[in-house]
Amino acid sequence: MFVERVKSEGLAHLSYVVGGAGEAAVVDPRRDCDVYVELAAARGCRITHVFETHRNEDLLSGAAILAARSGATVHHGPKPAGEVLFATTTREGEEFTIGDVRLRVLETPGHTDDSLSFAVYDIGSGEQAVAVFTGDALFIGDVGRTDFYPDRASEVAGLLYDSLRKILTLGDQAVVYPAHGAGSVCGSGMADRDVSTLGYERLNNPRLRIDDRDEFVAAKLAERHEQPPYFENMERQNLTGAAPIRHPLVPEPLTAAAVREQHGRCVRVDVRSASAFLGAHLPGSLALPIETISSFAGWLLRPEEELVLIANDAEHAERAARYLARIGYDDVAGFLAPSLASWAAGGEAFGTIPVVDAQTVRARVASEPVGWTLLDVRSADEIGETRIPGALHRYVGELPAHLDELDPARSYTVMCGSGTRATIAASVLLRAGIRDVDLFLGSLGAWRTLGYETEGAAEGARAAG
Amino acid sequence: MFVERVKSEGLAHLSYVVGGAGEAAVVDPRRDCDVYVELAAARGCRITHVFETHRNEDLLSGAAILAARSGATVHHGPKPAGEVLFATTTREGEEFTIGDVRLRVLETPGHTDDSLSFAVYDIGSGEQAVAVFTGDALFIGDVGRTDFYPDRASEVAGLLYDSLRKILTLGDQAVVYPAHGAGSVCGSGMADRDVSTLGYERLNNPRLRIDDRDEFVAAKLAERHEQPPYFENMERQNLTGAAPIRHPLVPEPLTAAAVREQHGRCVRVDVRSASAFLGAHLPGSLALPIETISSFAGWLLRPEEELVLIANDAEHAERAARYLARIGYDDVAGFLAPSLASWAAGGEAFGTIPVVDAQTVRARVASEPVGWTLLDVRSADEIGETRIPGALHRYVGELPAHLDELDPARSYTVMCGSGTRATIAASVLLRAGIRDVDLFLGSLGAWRTLGYETEGAAEGARAAG
Amino acid sequence: MFVERVKSEGLAHLSYVVGGAGEAAVVDPRRDCDVYVELAAARGCRITHVFETHRNEDLLSGAAILAARSGATVHHGPKPAGEVLFATTTREGEEFTIGDVRLRVLETPGHTDDSLSFAVYDIGSGEQAVAVFTGDALFIGDVGRTDFYPDRASEVAGLLYDSLRKILTLGDQAVVYPAHGAGSVCGSGMADRDVSTLGYERLNNPRLRIDDRDEFVAAKLAERHEQPPYFENMERQNLTGAAPIRHPLVPEPLTAAAVREQHGRCVRVDVRSASAFLGAHLPGSLALPIETISSFAGWLLRPEEELVLIANDAEHAERAARYLARIGYDDVAGFLAPSLASWAAGGEAFGTIPVVDAQTVRARVASEPVGWTLLDVRSADEIGETRIPGALHRYVGELPAHLDELDPARSYTVMCGSGTRATIAASVLLRAGIRDVDLFLGSLGAWRTLGYETEGAAEGARAAG
Amino acid sequence: MFVERVKSEGLAHLSYVVGGAGEAAVVDPRRDCDVYVELAAARGCRITHVFETHRNEDLLSGAAILAARSGATVHHGPKPAGEVLFATTTREGEEFTIGDVRLRVLETPGHTDDSLSFAVYDIGSGEQAVAVFTGDALFIGDVGRTDFYPDRASEVAGLLYDSLRKILTLGDQAVVYPAHGAGSVCGSGMADRDVSTLGYERLNNPRLRIDDRDEFVAAKLAERHEQPPYFENMERQNLTGAAPIRHPLVPEPLTAAAVREQHGRCVRVDVRSASAFLGAHLPGSLALPIETISSFAGWLLRPEEELVLIANDAEHAERAARYLARIGYDDVAGFLAPSLASWAAGGEAFGTIPVVDAQTVRARVASEPVGWTLLDVRSADEIGETRIPGALHRYVGELPAHLDELDPARSYTVMCGSGTRATIAASVLLRAGIRDVDLFLGSLGAWRTLGYETEGAAEGARAAG
Repeated sequence: MFVERVKSEGLAHLSYVVGGAGEAAVVDPRRDCDVYVELAAARGCRITHVFETHRNEDLLSGAAILAARSGATVHHGPKPAGEVLFATTTREGEEFTIGDVRLRVLETPGHTDDSLSFAVYDIGSGEQAVAVFTGDALFIGDVGRTDFYPDRASEVAGLLYDSLRKILTLGDQAVVYPAHGAGSVCGSGMADRDVSTLGYERLNNPRLRIDDRDEFVAAKLAERHEQPPYFENMERQNLTGAAPIRHPLVPEPLTAAAVREQHGRCVRVDVRSASAFLGAHLPGSLALPIETISSFAGWLLRPEEELVLIANDAEHAERAARYLARIGYDDVAGFLAPSLASWAAGGEAFGTIPVVDAQTVRARVASEPVGWTLLDVRSADEIGETRIPGALHRYVGELPAHLDELDPARSYTVMCGSGTRATIAASVLLRAGIRDVDLFLGSLGAWRTLGYETEGAAEGARAAG
Repeated sequence: MFVERVKSEGLAHLSYVVGGAGEAAVVDPRRDCDVYVELAAARGCRITHVFETHRNEDLLSGAAILAARSGATVHHGPKPAGEVLFATTTREGEEFTIGDVRLRVLETPGHTDDSLSFAVYDIGSGEQAVAVFTGDALFIGDVGRTDFYPDRASEVAGLLYDSLRKILTLGDQAVVYPAHGAGSVCGSGMADRDVSTLGYERLNNPRLRIDDRDEFVAAKLAERHEQPPYFENMERQNLTGAAPIRHPLVPEPLTAAAVREQHGRCVRVDVRSASAFLGAHLPGSLALPIETISSFAGWLLRPEEELVLIANDAEHAERAARYLARIGYDDVAGFLAPSLASWAAGGEAFGTIPVVDAQTVRARVASEPVGWTLLDVRSADEIGETRIPGALHRYVGELPAHLDELDPARSYTVMCGSGTRATIAASVLLRAGIRDVDLFLGSLGAWRTLGYETEGAAEGARAAG
Repeated sequence: MFVERVKSEGLAHLSYVVGGAGEAAVVDPRRDCDVYVELAAARGCRITHVFETHRNEDLLSGAAILAARSGATVHHGPKPAGEVLFATTTREGEEFTIGDVRLRVLETPGHTDDSLSFAVYDIGSGEQAVAVFTGDALFIGDVGRTDFYPDRASEVAGLLYDSLRKILTLGDQAVVYPAHGAGSVCGSGMADRDVSTLGYERLNNPRLRIDDRDEFVAAKLAERHEQPPYFENMERQNLTGAAPIRHPLVPEPLTAAAVREQHGRCVRVDVRSASAFLGAHLPGSLALPIETISSFAGWLLRPEEELVLIANDAEHAERAARYLARIGYDDVAGFLAPSLASWAAGGEAFGTIPVVDAQTVRARVASEPVGWTLLDVRSADEIGETRIPGALHRYVGELPAHLDELDPARSYTVMCGSGTRATIAASVLLRAGIRDVDLFLGSLGAWRTLGYETEGAAEGARAAG
Repeated sequence: MFVERVKSEGLAHLSYVVGGAGEAAVVDPRRDCDVYVELAAARGCRITHVFETHRNEDLLSGAAILAARSGATVHHGPKPAGEVLFATTTREGEEFTIGDVRLRVLETPGHTDDSLSFAVYDIGSGEQAVAVFTGDALFIGDVGRTDFYPDRASEVAGLLYDSLRKILTLGDQAVVYPAHGAGSVCGSGMADRDVSTLGYERLNNPRLRIDDRDEFVAAKLAERHEQPPYFENMERQNLTGAAPIRHPLVPEPLTAAAVREQHGRCVRVDVRSASAFLGAHLPGSLALPIETISSFAGWLLRPEEELVLIANDAEHAERAARYLARIGYDDVAGFLAPSLASWAAGGEAFGTIPVVDAQTVRARVASEPVGWTLLDVRSADEIGETRIPGALHRYVGELPAHLDELDPARSYTVMCGSGTRATIAASVLLRAGIRDVDLFLGSLGAWRTLGYETEGAAEGARAAG
C-alpha cells in the first residue's frame, strides 16, 4: 500500500491518494484534480473511491469532478447542512476495501457536524491502524476550529473533545494525515512540521494534552478566528459540486490598451511581490501577492467580479489563476502582458507607495504628528499578543467593511507582521480614495528586533516571567 | 514577428503559430490545442485568428475548440463539401493583420476545392512575402495528392498546377510552411527535411520542375494513393467541429481480470513495439505500435469500437490515447496495468508469433512448401518498385476487407519493408482465425541487403541502366 | 521541519532530506544527488550535513559528491571496514542541529558494524523522537540481513537484536524511515507499504515480534541471502567516494554499423521489456529489462566492461544509464538508435526466443523428452517454498559461474516466477553458446494458478494444514 | 535533414543543431550545452562536428566542452587573434558531410578576421544551398558590427561588404540562420523577426541594399557601438575553452544573517524586476533585472567578484546563475532565501527609490530646481535620435567609469527609454554614495506619448519631413 500526500501551496491544504494492488482512493480532493488521476495511474491504480472528511468551507472540492471522470463513488459524513448531491452518506464503522488497504469510518464531529476520520489498515500486515485521515478534527500541533455554529459553541467544542478521544483510541502507532498544514486559515496553532503520529500528538499537541473536557471547551471558546465571507460560497458550492476548471488555465495576455479599455471595469489584481507593488502598480489595483491569494482573495474579491491580473509572466499568471480557481474565482479576463516599465512607457498612469522603516515610524510615534495614524492590520489574536502602543487595529480582511472608520483627510502608515499584509491593506486604502498612505516595511518584526516598546499579553507574560 | 512550428509526431502534421506585438494566429490547429495557447501566451500574444488551409481529412481540426476558448475567429476557404459551421469564408486577396504581421489569402484549389494558402508579410520590414503557409498544396519535395475527386481527376490536377504557379509568384525568397512533413499519409514523395523556400522548391521539387500543365496532370493521374476509410469520418467531423479531448487523457489502469471480464468485448490494441508484440501479446489483440497509430488506426479500427490498450506504462498509454484522439478515437476504456509477464503469471492465455529471417524465407521461396504463402503487405507503389518473386500482395490497410482471399488452412509468412507493418498484418490474420502465421523480420530491407533476387520497376530501371 | 523521501526506483533505495528554518541534512544520498540540492533549495534550505546510516554495499553513495558541492560535512559510524575518507566518525549520543530539527545518533550495529540510526526531534515541539532513520537495521516489515560477516554470524545477529531493542526505546510514536523499501536486494520480507512507525512495527514486524534474543539469532541464521559480486566493489568505492556521474547522461545514439564495428566488442545490454527481447534481439546481447538493472547488473556485468545499450529510445537509454551509474557502471559507449525492425532491415543478424506456456511445459514434464531440462532460476528461498517437480535449480545471478553444469547439447526451457528473470537467464545461456533454449512465460505463477502439481515447504505446510 | 534553432534568451544568441541520418553538427554552441546533446539524441544523431562562425566576444563558447563530451571535432576560421586551442582551422571551400547534410565553408571576414559562414546542402535533394549559417556577418535586418579593429576600421568594413556579396551568391532561396536575434549587443538594427532568406534580406536589409562598397563603408563607420569591458575576457577564454558550468547550478539559499555576515563582502545582485527593486532592496545592491543580465553584467561586474543574488525564488536564482555563467560569472555564493519583507522584518536595513512620473519630471524641467539633474542613461545612438532638452547623458554601462562626473550633493532623476535601465543606473548611483536619487518611470516613452518637447535627429527629420 502507498499513501501520497498532495499539498496545495497557499491553501496549505493537504489531500491524499491511498491505495495499492490496482485500486486507489482520494481523500479530500481539491478542484484541480488531475494530479490524483496521474499519481494513481503512475502506480497502476484505478481510482475507485473518493472520501471527504467534511464539507470544506475554505476551498472547492474536486470530489464531484473526480467521480464524473473516473466513476469513483464519493462518500461523505451524515448531517451536512444540506444534501451533498454527488455523495453517499457513510457512517461510523463502515469499511471500504481499496486494493490491499482497508479504510474504516470514524464519525468525528466538532469542527463540523459531518466531520469524519478514516482509519487506515494494511490488509494482511497487522490489526492496528497504520494511519488515520483526520480532516479538520486533528492537525499537527493543533485541533480543528469550532466557531462555525455560534449558537452551539460549547456543544460542538465538546463534540470535538469526544471525537479526538475516539481518534486516540486507534493507538500511538498511527500516522496522522490531516487536511491542512501550517499556514491554513483553518487553524493558527499548527506546527510547521509535515509528519506526526497519534502518539506524538497525544504527548505534545497542546489541545490534546488537555484531558479535562470542560477545560478543553473553555480553551476552544476563548479562541478568536476570522471567518472570511467566501466560506459561505464554498460551502454552498460543495453541496452541489464545483465545475471543472478551465483547461488550459493560462489567462489571455492583454495589451495596456486592452486593460485600460475593453477590460477597464475589471478588478485589477496584482499578484506580484509586495516589493513590486510598492515600487509601481496600476492605479486602482488590489495587491494580492500570489502566496496570499488563498488567505485574502476570499475577503477582498466578490465571486461575481471579473478580474485582470498583473503578474510577472504568463506562467505566474497561470499559477495565480489556479489559486483563484481553487476558491471559486474563475472569471479572469487576462493578464497584463507588458511589464510595469512598459506600461508606464506607454504613457499610462501608475501608482507607487512610499516605504518607511522602523526608525521613521518610531520617530512618528514619539512625535505624534497631527492627522497621522499607524494602522495595524494583523489579526485579533496577533494584536492580543503584541502591539505598538497607539496603533489603530483593523484586520486586513475586514478593512473593506470598515472603510467608513477611516478618514481620507488623514495620513496612514500601514503595518502588519512584516509588510506583506500591510501592502494588501494599503492597496485597499488607495482603492477607497485615501491618498496619503505609506508602508512600514519590516513592521512588528523589525520593531521588536530593534527592541522598541510594545504592549500586549506576550509582554505581560514576559514581564511576569 | 515570430513563427513557431508545432509538429504532431506520427501524423507528421505541421501547424503554426504566427504573430507578434501582442497578437497571434494559429494555422491548421490539431485537436489537442493547448500547445498553441501556451506558446502564444509565453510570447505575450492573444490568439485572435485561426486559419484553415483546407478541411482536413486525415486528422481532427482544433479550430472550433480554439475559437470557443479564445474568442478567435476561424477562417476557411470557399466551396468545402458542406458548410464549415464554426468558420467564416475567406477569399482570394483578403488580408488579415495580426499584431505586426499581415496574412494575405491565396485560393489554391487542387488538393481540395477549398484549399487556401496564406502569404506572410512582416509589416514595416518589406513588401515581399517572407513566408507562405501552403497547406496540402505544396510540401517540401512534393505537392498535394489530387485523388479525392475521382470524377474530376484531370480537372483538379490541373487546378493544383495553376495554384502552384500562383504560389510561386510570391518569389523565391518566401519560406515554405506546409501542413505535413515526411511520413504523412498525404504524400509519399516528401523530403525528409524540415526547411525550404519557394526558390529551393522551384528548383528542386520534382513536381514543381514540370513546367508543362498537361505533363503535370499526367504525372498526378499516374500516382497511386491509399485512402483510409476514416478520412470520411474526419471530413464530416471537421464540418461541425470536433469536441475537446478528455482531460486528463491518461487512461484507467486495468487489472488482468478487468481486461478479461468487464472490458472483455473491447478491442485490445497493443501499442508496444513490434518486437514486444512478437514476443508475447494478449490473444486477439491488434498490433499497432504507437508510431503507427496515425497511419493505420484509421484502417483497422471502427470509430464506435471501445478500446483497451496494452502499453509499456501509464505515460505510454496516455501518449497512445492522444494519438488516437487526434484522429477521433476517444473510447479508450483503459490500459492493462500489469506487464505481459505478470499477465501470463496470472494464468492468462497469451500469443506469440514466430520470427524468421531472410535466409529462412529464401529457402522457403526456393523450395515452395505446400500450403505456404509469402504475404507482402506494403503499398501498391512500393510493390510496383520492388518485390520478391512469388509473393502475394495485399496492402496492410486493406487486409480486413479482403480476409476472404486468405485460407485458414494455409501458413503465411508476412513481410513488409522491415517488419513493423508486417507485425500489424500478422495480428490482423491471427484475429481473423488464421493460426499458422510467422513474421519475416527485416523483410525486403534485409532481402535486398543480402542481394537476393527481386523484380519490379526499380529492377527494370536498374537492368536497363 | 520537513522530511522529504527520495525513492530510487529499481534499487528500492530510500534517502531523505530533513530540515527546516534554512538548513537541511541528507540521509544516505545516492550518487546522482542533484535531487537533494533542488529539494532543499526549493524550501530555502542550505545542505549543511550528510549522514550515512552505514557504508552501503548495494549502491554508490553520493555523500562525497554532495559534500564537495555544498560544503556539507559527512558523518559516518565507527568501525567501517576501512577508513571512509570523506567522512568524520560520529558516535552514540552525538547530536546535530539542522535548522529547527535535532538529530541524535544511535549506534545500531548488526547489519554492518558501522550501522547508525538517527532519532529525529522537532525542536520546541516535544521531547520525544518524531521519527527515526533506521538505515538497514529496521525496515518496514523486516529487519536488516546479517550475512556479511560469515565468521561472526551469531554475534552480528545478536548485535542487530540489541540494536533493534535500542531503537524501540524511542517510543511507539516515532515514524520509521528505513534505507530500503520492498524490492530491495537488502531484504526479502519487506512490506509493500511506504509508511510505518515504531509502534506499528513493534506489533507487526515478524522479526521484531521475536522477543527472545536466541530465537531471533536462530531465525536470522536460517535466512538465505544471495550476495552479488558487485557488493565488494560498492563497498570499496564507498570508502573513497564515488565520482560524480557524467552530465548530461544520455548515451550516444549509434548506428547499426557503429554497434557492429567500432563498438563490436562491447557487451550488448538490452534494457527493453522481456517480451521485446523474446520477440527479437541482437545476437549475443544480455537481457536486462530496465527495472531489473539494479538487481542483476551486479551479477552479470563486470565493472570494466564497456556497454552498448539496446533501448526503446533516447530517454529510455538515459534512464538505463542512470540506473547503471548508481551501481558503478559508467562505461556506456552508446545505444542502438534504430529499432530492431530497422536493424534487421539493414541485413543484420538477430535472435529470437521461442515462448511456451504452462500447458506445453506440463506436457513435457509429463513426457520427459530426451535431452530436455526445465531450468528454474529463482532464488534458493523461493525454490525452498514451491517448485515444479523435476526442475533443475540455479539462481539467475549465479548462472555465469555455473555454466559448466549445463550441456550445450541439451534443450532448456527456462522459468522463474513470471518470465522476466527467466528471460535474463535465457540470454545468459544463449551468450554461452547453448542454442536450444525456450522460455516458459507465466512460469510458476501460471503453473500454480492452473493448479498443476508442485512441491516444497509451502506445499508441505499446506498439506499439513 | 533537420535544423533546430536554440535561442538563449537575454543574450539573444542563436545556435543550431543541424544534421540527419544519425549524425549532427552544432553551430556556435553556448556554454551550457546539454541542450544540444539532448536534441541530437532525441533525433537519434551523434554529434560529430562543432562549427564556430567566429571567436565570440559576447558569450562563452561551449565548443570545447561539447568536444570533450562527445568526441566531436571543432572547426574554426583562420586568423583568430590567438590560437584556438581546441579547434582545427578550416578554410574557404572545405566541405563536411554530417549524415545527409553537407556544409561548405565560406570565409566571410569583416565582423572579425576569423568569421566564417557555412552553406547548407541537402545531399541528394538539390545543388543549391538550402540555408546558410551567417554568424555575425549577416543578421535579419542588419549586418555585423565592424568596430573591433579601430586601426583598420575602413578595411574591415570593406571586408564585410565583400563577405556579404559572397554570401548573396548562394542565391535567394537560402534560409538565413544568424548567430544573434533582436536584442543582442551585437547589432541594434536587427529585425524583431525570427525567419528570413537571402532573397528577403537582399531586398529589404538596409545594409544589404547599399550596393556601393564605399557607401557601405561610410555607413558602417558612422555607427556608434558600445563595447563592454567583458568582451575582452570572453575573447580570451574562447581561445582556451571555457570550463563546464557547475551542475546543478541552483545557488545556495542563504539566510539574512549569512548574507550580512559570512557573505558580507559579496556584491549583492538583485535580479528581480525593476518595480521590486524600486519598492525595496538590500542596501548597496546592484539592480540587474534578470532579462538585463546579458546586456549589463559585463559592464557592471568584474569577473573576480563573488556575488550574492536577490531573486524571487530558487528557480529564479538558478536562471540568473545560468545567465551569469554564460558570460563567465561563476562565483555565486548563494541567494537570499527570505523575501524582502522577511528581510526587513528581521530588523535588517533596506533601501527604496522614489518613483516619479512624466508630469512631475516636466514640472521640474520647467522650473529647473537648484541642484537637480535629469540623468539619461540610454546609448549614444538613442540619445542622438531623441532626447529631453537639458538632460545629462551618460550610458548606463559607462557610469561606473564616470562616477567622478557626478556630484553627491546634487539630486538626480534617472531616466532611460522606459525605466528599466534607469533602475540599474539608479542602483549604481546609490552604491557610489549618491543619496538623492529618484526614478522617472515611463521615461522617454511616457514623455513622447504625452507629446512633451524633445530634441534630436528624429525630431529634425520629423520637422524637415
